[in-house]
Formats: sequence, C-alpha cells, structure tokens
Amino acid sequence: MIGRLNHVAIAVPDLEAAAAQYRDTLGASVGAPQDEPDHGVTVVFIELPNTKIELLYPLGEDSPIRGFLDKNPSGGIHHVCYEVDDILVARDRLKSQGARVLGSGEPKIGAHGKPVLFLHPKDFNGCLVELEQV
Amino acid sequence: MIGRLNHVAIAVPDLEAAAAQYRDTLGASVGAPQDEPDHGVTVVFIELPNTKIELLYPLGEDSPIRGFLDKNPSGGIHHVCYEVDDILVARDRLKSQGARVLGSGEPKIGAHGKPVLFLHPKDFNGCLVELEQV
Repeated sequence: MIGRLNHVAIAVPDLEAAAAQYRDTLGASVGAPQDEPDHGVTVVFIELPNTKIELLYPLGEDSPIRGFLDKNPSGGIHHVCYEVDDILVARDRLKSQGARVLGSGEPKIGAHGKPVLFLHPKDFNGCLVELEQV
Repeated sequence: MIGRLNHVAIAVPDLEAAAAQYRDTLGASVGAPQDEPDHGVTVVFIELPNTKIELLYPLGEDSPIRGFLDKNPSGGIHHVCYEVDDILVARDRLKSQGARVLGSGEPKIGAHGKPVLFLHPKDFNGCLVELEQV
C-alpha cells in the first residue's frame, strides 16, 4: 500500500541556520522558506536525489511544532511521510485495522498541494506517520 | 556533498510486531531480521521504491538502542542516513566546520557492509545523522 518515502521532516529551532547548514556544510540543494498557515509551519525543502528533507519551524501561536520544540529544544526528527495512491482507501484500511487518524480524520491539503493525513504515533512505534496522496 | 537518503531508522519495542505491521497493515516489502552484533542491534529493512526504513531492536546488553527505548518506550525515529562518496573527505569537511563525530571518529562497517560514521545530534538540529560511503 505505501509507496515512496515522500519526505522526512525535522523540526528545527532556527530555520535560517538549519537551511544554511544543509546548503553550506552538507552541500545539499535547499529551497526557499514557504509559510504553510493551514499547518502552522514554515517549511524549507531539501532536495536529495531520491527524496526530500522538510525542515519545520513554528508559524503562529497554535503551531503543532511548538510543543515538540519545547520538549526538544535542539530540534529533532518529527515525522516521515509515505506516499499512497488513494488516501481514503488507505485511511479506511488502516482504521479497519485499529490505527487512529489524527484530527477530524478527513484529509487536509499539505505543503505540496495534495491531500494528507497523520496517523497516531502510538500506533506506529512512536513514529508520527503522514500519508500523502500522489 | 550528501547524496541519497539511504534509510530512516526507527527503534521499535517489538521487532516482530513492527515488521508484521509494515508488511500486513502498510503493505510494504519487509526483509528478514539480521543481527548486527558490532552495532548492538537486530535490524529489519523495509524496501520502499526510493529508499529504505530500518527497524532497529536492541541486541546484547550494551546496545545503543536500549537507552533510547528506555526514554521512548513506544519506539521512535532514531536516525537518518545520508550517502556520501568518500566518508573520510566528508568527515574531515564536517569536522573542519565544527561538527562532532561520535565514537572513535573512525568509520565502522555498517549493516550494508560499507563504512559508516555517526554525527552528534546536537550539531544537527537534534537529529542523529549517519553517513554511509556508497
């Protein structure tokens, strides 16, 4: 069911410094910051040859990243995103097997303009999983 | 400098259950468990179309994963592994820019039979980074 790893997201306490480190120290291809107000984050995508790293920084007071950074002030790996062909089919299959979908359970439009859902980390080895329909 | 994302590693409290979940619930291609006594882990690789997920479980009393699971009993994302062409060139470049290499600073042979190094998470946004020469 799951396809490609779309991205790994890393929450960072200083977006500019993290982007500069990936560009200058690690020599990767780093994009421009994009505000995603619907998700409460500013993101920078790092293009690797086979997938992307998504640097996440809080946007707004209700950002879901803020609590994570309070607990992990240096930052940390926040989630992985797997691609699926049909997000509603994937959701219903996962729910039928007992996995919990976060929020309303309905897909939102993610940073790539495509429908996304998040699955409860307690159901996936402590790992927050995003599904993105591609 | 960094190339492909070789894998994302997830430490899990129950390797058999996690492998079954990726195979049966998420529908991914899941390999057989491999003991890596030099690294104190048993690993299961999940082959996605563009990269791999590495499930990690402690092997032996001194496993580096044991403390992580004590702090994160449900499991969690443990590290990301980036590929490099020349691990000594990469190490020296990173050290010259202030990044700390874990352990002796000399590459060890990793789960794929290739030289690997780990970088200090405090120098990389709280994210443990493995480099693997390919």
